[in-house]
Amino acid sequence: MSRFMNPRFAALRPYVPGEQPREMRYVKLNTNESPYPPAPAVLAAVSAAEVRRLNLYPDPDCRLLREKLAARYGVGPENVLVANGSDEVLNFAFMAFCDAESGVACPDISYGFYPVLAALYGVPLREVPLAEDFSLRPEDYFGLGCPVVFANPNAPTGRAIRPAQVERILQNDPDHVVLVDEAYVDFGAESCVPLVSKYDNLLVSMTFSKSRSMAGGRLGFAIGSAGLIGDLEKIRCSTNPYNINRLTMAAALATLDSDDYYMENCRRIAQTRDRTAEQLAKRGFSTLPSLTNFLFTACPEMSGEQLYQKLRARGVLVRYWNTPRLKDYIRVTIGSPEEMETFLAAVDASREER
Amino acid sequence: MSRFMNPRFAALRPYVPGEQPREMRYVKLNTNESPYPPAPAVLAAVSAAEVRRLNLYPDPDCRLLREKLAARYGVGPENVLVANGSDEVLNFAFMAFCDAESGVACPDISYGFYPVLAALYGVPLREVPLAEDFSLRPEDYFGLGCPVVFANPNAPTGRAIRPAQVERILQNDPDHVVLVDEAYVDFGAESCVPLVSKYDNLLVSMTFSKSRSMAGGRLGFAIGSAGLIGDLEKIRCSTNPYNINRLTMAAALATLDSDDYYMENCRRIAQTRDRTAEQLAKRGFSTLPSLTNFLFTACPEMSGEQLYQKLRARGVLVRYWNTPRLKDYIRVTIGSPEEMETFLAAVDASREER
Repeated sequence: MSRFMNPRFAALRPYVPGEQPREMRYVKLNTNESPYPPAPAVLAAVSAAEVRRLNLYPDPDCRLLREKLAARYGVGPENVLVANGSDEVLNFAFMAFCDAESGVACPDISYGFYPVLAALYGVPLREVPLAEDFSLRPEDYFGLGCPVVFANPNAPTGRAIRPAQVERILQNDPDHVVLVDEAYVDFGAESCVPLVSKYDNLLVSMTFSKSRSMAGGRLGFAIGSAGLIGDLEKIRCSTNPYNINRLTMAAALATLDSDDYYMENCRRIAQTRDRTAEQLAKRGFSTLPSLTNFLFTACPEMSGEQLYQKLRARGVLVRYWNTPRLKDYIRVTIGSPEEMETFLAAVDASREER
Repeated sequence: MSRFMNPRFAALRPYVPGEQPREMRYVKLNTNESPYPPAPAVLAAVSAAEVRRLNLYPDPDCRLLREKLAARYGVGPENVLVANGSDEVLNFAFMAFCDAESGVACPDISYGFYPVLAALYGVPLREVPLAEDFSLRPEDYFGLGCPVVFANPNAPTGRAIRPAQVERILQNDPDHVVLVDEAYVDFGAESCVPLVSKYDNLLVSMTFSKSRSMAGGRLGFAIGSAGLIGDLEKIRCSTNPYNINRLTMAAALATLDSDDYYMENCRRIAQTRDRTAEQLAKRGFSTLPSLTNFLFTACPEMSGEQLYQKLRARGVLVRYWNTPRLKDYIRVTIGSPEEMETFLAAVDASREER
């Protein structure tokens, strides 16, 4: 830290993303990307004509994109915010709705970015332990008197709760924002978006990075009451009003026109996931039930880190965490069926070697 | 504002960008975009192959891009931060180096985003008046005991000071960051980047939006001491570590490979600017000396707003500000020679009509 930095950031430990090897020689199952490319319409939309217009600013209101997202999700454009990835949604939401007095509650095991944002903005963090089986107990969040954020389905566990359960949380503290991070919702879970019209304290965050094959394009969005979205817009326009570039905007519009392609890919990924889970069960792994594009699974005789190392040596990247509750597990992104065969073969070879 | 918003944002008034008409029927001289398209290499770089890889995250370290920028500017990669437009550089810098105790000083007339960021982060703003002729007097910034930010060349005036003058500011308060916003430096002014190795409190911000025909691609960067850049990296990785998308990254790399094309465009724009200024002088306008891609000019018999309205009715968009010191002026982006002919003809017609 330089002598010029605000001392309140002295203890700040930035988020550490999963490794992004620059050489592509790994089977990359570590950052929950889609194994499938964008739809053909996206390739057509990022056209030479669009690149030629890069000298002009994008629409700072993202009007077309917000309208199209609104139509897709059955809400109004005033209920939609778009952002440079859903991390930016989270960033805006922490700024807008949390502070040193409010604090913020989140599961002890969830997306690692929440504690980073809490530390960045000096928001006291109330970590609520998940149950022994890594499920989220709605009643643990009743009447905490502070904003709440959780991923549903959760990461890295893969478990989800039903909207009716989220509704109980919303009802039990109507005076604080409940931010439901639905980054992984398209792989089989149920979205809370239909609750937005009923609860003005509900904010749902989503991303094109997982189910819509656009991790490289950076597009996230939030759906919520017009009041909450207006607040986030105010923050967006006070930090970076041109946050969505022209090429991402064009790609995102074409993505929404190809919704069937992406939802079909999600079904394929869910099938591959369930088959992979079966294969792991046959091998004695204990795997959490997943409604996402990854599996959280523990090998009977190796720690997550050990298995990670052995898989890496065989060209397969997965992710592990060295914390007490997670250390037995690895998180494996669901790739193509062929990639999962490679993964399983690498698992078998890693275990034989012992 | 919803009842959930942090009350400290109650008075926040977001930045208002220049209007971005969605129909392209205007001669658009209001947001300082380049009239020239990106280089052919950029069109080639945003290839179908690159779009097909959108399912994969971009490199969160932006290593190649930082190396290439470092080589271009004669610094090390540790001296370079890249961001989603230079607005994001400014946002990170306000977070990192300014707070309620420090305050921040900037000219009373400069980029309208500085006061917005100061309000957002609760940083008391010390507005330092420009001289009567809109020039910036370095001595006004000596020993203020707080961070300083100004655009050089300044906007919307177009006037610049020399690096030797900036150096005097740096020397006179070595314990506070001096942020020099060089968004417009490529049109004839001298950059302060060579001073970075000498002053650890100097941060220079730049953008691809003006001189590099990439307003629609959103790429800004900062050059400074490794200490300052490390601080900004810490903020970046705590808010949005994947802030640069793959397509912008590819376009930016190709842009740097075509540097001659862009620097030649800058010379053409400077020539068009100087010819336009001559034409305005012949018409009795008083125009500030400009080292940017715009002119700040006052019509002898009309306010800025009046002229703006008349030009708009004739299909030419410029910008004006309704504040006491600026109300006589319009700011006119330098377009192509043909666009400037259209602008001058619209000026003549607007005046004849009176």
